[in-house]
Amino acid sequence: MDLRAHWMRGGTSKCWVFEHAAIQKTGFSADTLLPRIFGSPDVRQLDGVGGATSTTSKAMILRRSESEDIDVEFTFAQVGIEEAKVDWGSNCGNCSSVVGLYAIEQGWVARRNDVTEVRTFNTNTKQTIIQSIPTPDRQLPDHLTSIVPGTVFPGHSVQLGFLSPEGRTTGKLLPTGQAISRIATGDTIAEVSLIDAGAPLALIDAEKFGFPAESYDDWVDQVSAQLETIETIRRQAAVEMGLAHDPQDAERAIPKIGLVSRSTDESADLQILMLSMGRPHPAMPITGSVGVSVAAQTQGTVVANSLGSPSGHELRIRIPGGVLSTFIDDSSLGRTIGVHRTARTLAEASLPFATDQLQEAALSQSEEALECRT
Amino acid sequence: MDLRAHWMRGGTSKCWVFEHAAIQKTGFSADTLLPRIFGSPDVRQLDGVGGATSTTSKAMILRRSESEDIDVEFTFAQVGIEEAKVDWGSNCGNCSSVVGLYAIEQGWVARRNDVTEVRTFNTNTKQTIIQSIPTPDRQLPDHLTSIVPGTVFPGHSVQLGFLSPEGRTTGKLLPTGQAISRIATGDTIAEVSLIDAGAPLALIDAEKFGFPAESYDDWVDQVSAQLETIETIRRQAAVEMGLAHDPQDAERAIPKIGLVSRSTDESADLQILMLSMGRPHPAMPITGSVGVSVAAQTQGTVVANSLGSPSGHELRIRIPGGVLSTFIDDSSLGRTIGVHRTARTLAEASLPFATDQLQEAALSQSEEALECRT
Repeated sequence: MDLRAHWMRGGTSKCWVFEHAAIQKTGFSADTLLPRIFGSPDVRQLDGVGGATSTTSKAMILRRSESEDIDVEFTFAQVGIEEAKVDWGSNCGNCSSVVGLYAIEQGWVARRNDVTEVRTFNTNTKQTIIQSIPTPDRQLPDHLTSIVPGTVFPGHSVQLGFLSPEGRTTGKLLPTGQAISRIATGDTIAEVSLIDAGAPLALIDAEKFGFPAESYDDWVDQVSAQLETIETIRRQAAVEMGLAHDPQDAERAIPKIGLVSRSTDESADLQILMLSMGRPHPAMPITGSVGVSVAAQTQGTVVANSLGSPSGHELRIRIPGGVLSTFIDDSSLGRTIGVHRTARTLAEASLPFATDQLQEAALSQSEEALECRT
Repeated sequence: MDLRAHWMRGGTSKCWVFEHAAIQKTGFSADTLLPRIFGSPDVRQLDGVGGATSTTSKAMILRRSESEDIDVEFTFAQVGIEEAKVDWGSNCGNCSSVVGLYAIEQGWVARRNDVTEVRTFNTNTKQTIIQSIPTPDRQLPDHLTSIVPGTVFPGHSVQLGFLSPEGRTTGKLLPTGQAISRIATGDTIAEVSLIDAGAPLALIDAEKFGFPAESYDDWVDQVSAQLETIETIRRQAAVEMGLAHDPQDAERAIPKIGLVSRSTDESADLQILMLSMGRPHPAMPITGSVGVSVAAQTQGTVVANSLGSPSGHELRIRIPGGVLSTFIDDSSLGRTIGVHRTARTLAEASLPFATDQLQEAALSQSEEALECRT
């Protein structure tokens, strides 16, 4: 049997894209089918299309929507490597950026002159994301020039607009009711904006915390001596945002935390260094960019205060890997906050697989499920 | 523009397979085209089909042969990752095993009942490899059962038969004229067979070297204390085989070296632990298996002496990862020595690429070439 799939780059991720109907036609569930197609369980994923790392074992399942407001519904699947399992618990921002391009390439939406808007809905997070892709003369251009930080080659430009991302976790944009909180650790008092937009986010005023804007290039080195202090601030922020009862209970990745300052040159509006799992991060998660962009529009926050002039519709954020652009825009569904990515189709493929192996896998999965129930 | 390609697993490698004519049709050389298709230069090969490791950045270029004795000529390409360059200097044994299956799938050779023989010629090494693949009732079976060590999933069974592999490097099967050489290092005298078949190979009598056959499972641990001694033996072997003037000049990987003993149970004929770049290796290179198989047929060698009875047409070699089978067989072109692998097509694909980027790459390559000349 064969399964039709496209291999696409979205931002800095590589994702295998499947149509829901094609998976259904096989008669197997995605939980059974995807691990076999990816070559799991196998630490090297030798006998499948997986790349043997968590960032190259990602799948997207797309279907045309029956809702009037949405063109495409998509579901992100993190395919296990050493286990033949699929994790459906989160979305991948970078992979999201292939959905609009796929819909245009397949003719699921009519191309409009200059820019085509594709209204997408992520089922993992219930987030609507409006994607805008240049289609001059109603065509996808052959000559690609748009390059995003962290990538070498150009792709189709994709604006990912998150519709109403405010308060999705805590119910409030500013869970403490304040634009700036003062969090003390030992002798240090940090000024921190606690924002819930895209995802919960704690943004420290870098200059008041001892990180001069002028020495941004040294922040990555300088921060290593402050990692414990920053983690303490992050855990206290979790409590103040109502995400944890006490600091010890705070989750490892919620809220995300970063240092923010004004930019010292004209190529960016802001400078940010994010920390991920207690370490400086060279890039910026898409949900983090969304949160910073909302904070820039919110009077009195560390981000708004760092801007020389009130934030316009575009915000240029310096990160260690380059400069990211975020934007505030009006879509057909309302105001969106989003980021710029690129996407490209790497392969249009047909993936052969043996059904006998899948029947065994499906049987052992249902036996496992039965065991768990009894 | 699009390039047609198949992604195939051969043994423990994943290889992208291209037809020579398809590459020619693009108007670009493989040196220009393959790096772009693989996403190089980029340490993550994000914008292409490469897997960002040397074992997943491999390509094979196939063409039907005009010679009467050969069905398919193939060239192996190691595609650079951080550099947009292609290395044509060697063959990959595992990738070789996809060639016969591809030829059968494409109808380049007529399927015969039970087994179809495909006569292939590797242009990198000028080695003829006869590939035999089961085709009961002139069909490639749907139900696959053959699994080789180091892989989890079954594939089509492929016998890779190397035609006349003896003496390809030194001109002689036994470069010293002797089946066993005694090489002294300090107090130790090792009995070593120096063989040139497939590639130059030094095989140490493990039991006389202090590695009891009964404790094969401990060899990997035990050998760590002997690595320097074994490297000294390997370098001395290089001199005796005429591969180096003195031990310091010996190349890092020529000859290959390993420990050999009789097997202590009936599931294998021999036990071998190969060393690669000074460390114990869990598997066995295909050329190494070929050399061991020839040594088993050569009276007086360490390998022949380790066998309880004279070697038959099949030889089962225990390695840390399992048991490998090698065979001696008669093909339409003569006696071959070879190994068993499995192969499977993972994807039949069309790979889109932008020609404008390639024109720039081709231009910069020819400018580079011009600079080197002037």
